[in-house]
Amino acid sequence: MRIAMLAPISWRTPPRHYGPWEMVTSLLTEALVARGVDVTLFATADSRTSGKLAAVCPAPYSEDPAIDAKVWEMLHVAHVFERAGEFDIIHNQADFVPLAFSRLVETPVVTTIHGFSSERIVPVFKAYNDRVHYAAISDADRHPDLRYAATIHHGIRLEDFPFDPIGGEDVLFFGRIHPDKGAAEAIAAARLAGRRLMIAGIVQDQRYHDEQVAPAIDNRNVIYRGPVGGADRAKTLGSALALLHLINFDEPFGLSVVEALASGTPVIAFNRGSMPELIDDGVTGFLVDSVSAAVQAIGRIGEIDRAACRAAVSARFTVDRMADRYLSLYRTLLG
Amino acid sequence: MRIAMLAPISWRTPPRHYGPWEMVTSLLTEALVARGVDVTLFATADSRTSGKLAAVCPAPYSEDPAIDAKVWEMLHVAHVFERAGEFDIIHNQADFVPLAFSRLVETPVVTTIHGFSSERIVPVFKAYNDRVHYAAISDADRHPDLRYAATIHHGIRLEDFPFDPIGGEDVLFFGRIHPDKGAAEAIAAARLAGRRLMIAGIVQDQRYHDEQVAPAIDNRNVIYRGPVGGADRAKTLGSALALLHLINFDEPFGLSVVEALASGTPVIAFNRGSMPELIDDGVTGFLVDSVSAAVQAIGRIGEIDRAACRAAVSARFTVDRMADRYLSLYRTLLG
Repeated sequence: MRIAMLAPISWRTPPRHYGPWEMVTSLLTEALVARGVDVTLFATADSRTSGKLAAVCPAPYSEDPAIDAKVWEMLHVAHVFERAGEFDIIHNQADFVPLAFSRLVETPVVTTIHGFSSERIVPVFKAYNDRVHYAAISDADRHPDLRYAATIHHGIRLEDFPFDPIGGEDVLFFGRIHPDKGAAEAIAAARLAGRRLMIAGIVQDQRYHDEQVAPAIDNRNVIYRGPVGGADRAKTLGSALALLHLINFDEPFGLSVVEALASGTPVIAFNRGSMPELIDDGVTGFLVDSVSAAVQAIGRIGEIDRAACRAAVSARFTVDRMADRYLSLYRTLLG
Repeated sequence: MRIAMLAPISWRTPPRHYGPWEMVTSLLTEALVARGVDVTLFATADSRTSGKLAAVCPAPYSEDPAIDAKVWEMLHVAHVFERAGEFDIIHNQADFVPLAFSRLVETPVVTTIHGFSSERIVPVFKAYNDRVHYAAISDADRHPDLRYAATIHHGIRLEDFPFDPIGGEDVLFFGRIHPDKGAAEAIAAARLAGRRLMIAGIVQDQRYHDEQVAPAIDNRNVIYRGPVGGADRAKTLGSALALLHLINFDEPFGLSVVEALASGTPVIAFNRGSMPELIDDGVTGFLVDSVSAAVQAIGRIGEIDRAACRAAVSARFTVDRMADRYLSLYRTLLG
């Protein structure tokens, strides 16, 4: 089976630190290659894969200001469709632009919808409802106007997140510094709970950071670690008392939630979006509806068995499971 | 001959007031239809044409905030390429996105390059150098790395710009309020020349407008007329002493320059970009290099014969001439 795997070009595949879509694309690519599938990864030229790399874009546009995002996105997407005849399936992980090319080739197109940046982008997904095979990344993220081939949760490599049976005393915020992700809520909850808060992530909304996050960073009670990638990522996630994931949007999936659980760290999350699909309330963390409920949950964190957190990921969120599900989808489409 | 004419969807085709790319697209479409060519205009759904209108985008994205520009641009461009088999030529007036689709169809693609918003967009034009037939809108705008099929100056309908043999006493700025277009330079030149200045155009750069234009507007010496379209456009252009076109960029073409000349109004322009191709120095206006030279030129404006201005447009910048040139290009490509 010959798969063209189309990554976004915002970040390298796999990403250096931040880049969840590129991370999932890389995880799936490598797992498929390990299963003997012939995968060509279309990604930025600095990307790495044990499959075949096909690149026209010299560098990720979020890392190199010389790269015009739209120009290179068009060249990148055109590249895979101009080579469509070489593949049995084109698997698009790069949002909606590739949909517009899908009727011009014979090759079936699978699209993992990593989220809707706005309701205003739904029309283009609707327009290709009868041509492209959509995979949702959570049931919560299924749009009622779209037809899906499957819901396939993201999976991670358990070996990248060693189990830490003890954790630590500090609570953790791990994500983009952006109102959606709730850094300010995490700061408030930690302070009320009398816990030190570690913050890790890129600054995506500078004004929010300057006004609502930076003033609290005192390197005593609130410590900012910057974007944390690689082995540090696992260590940071595993050494926490709990991950505070007090999101202000219906997050379609939370890679850091699953990574924290894999490391043994329970998650306290606002009960919205995909959170109830990822967290078993009272077993692997707590689903809460307010900052004060989050504070109470921090007080009850001792009730959570860290081994149960890892077990849940092992059962439901491994990259092997994700790769099996996608392979099964490909096979169904190819008859 | 069946032509698919692909307009941008930033504005209606033809535009209500501002929208030079859509204006040229409309002028060419109507002139081709008048010659008996079978033209299908791909444009926003509110567009008007005596040819066939093909529309998926309900409204222009610069006029309706509910329209996501990128989403609808993809749907709009995909629409024409999905119907490529119905046409002998696809004529793209909508920048670089359509290039990326061009190798997926058999139909020849002509692209009028209306300008390069940045050097960073050149790579995508280079990538389709051997597939797409480029038309430059001035020799000045030819990029050295690209191969062109032709330079075809824009043309206007002379009947839309009645000749005003007298003009008026006021100088005129006509264009986007943006540093590129030199409203601040026009204000300075008018003041130094002791002339009243009329300003017409959309505000494209709000901060520049607030800081460098608005403070000068006193409704006595400097008057802002807002965006001026339709019949008012011709009247405003024709009733001026001179058009001040003191641009701060290498403008690839100046539709308002040609329109002013057609109305009999000479043009004083900075000598850069396409200006020497549009203005005969000392005959239809003056090419200058500084604000003080512009002031001197205002003093010498009586030397210009307004009839010569109109005659120059009649000889070189009519829509008929533009349509003939494009028809001839189409015929060459179709062998």
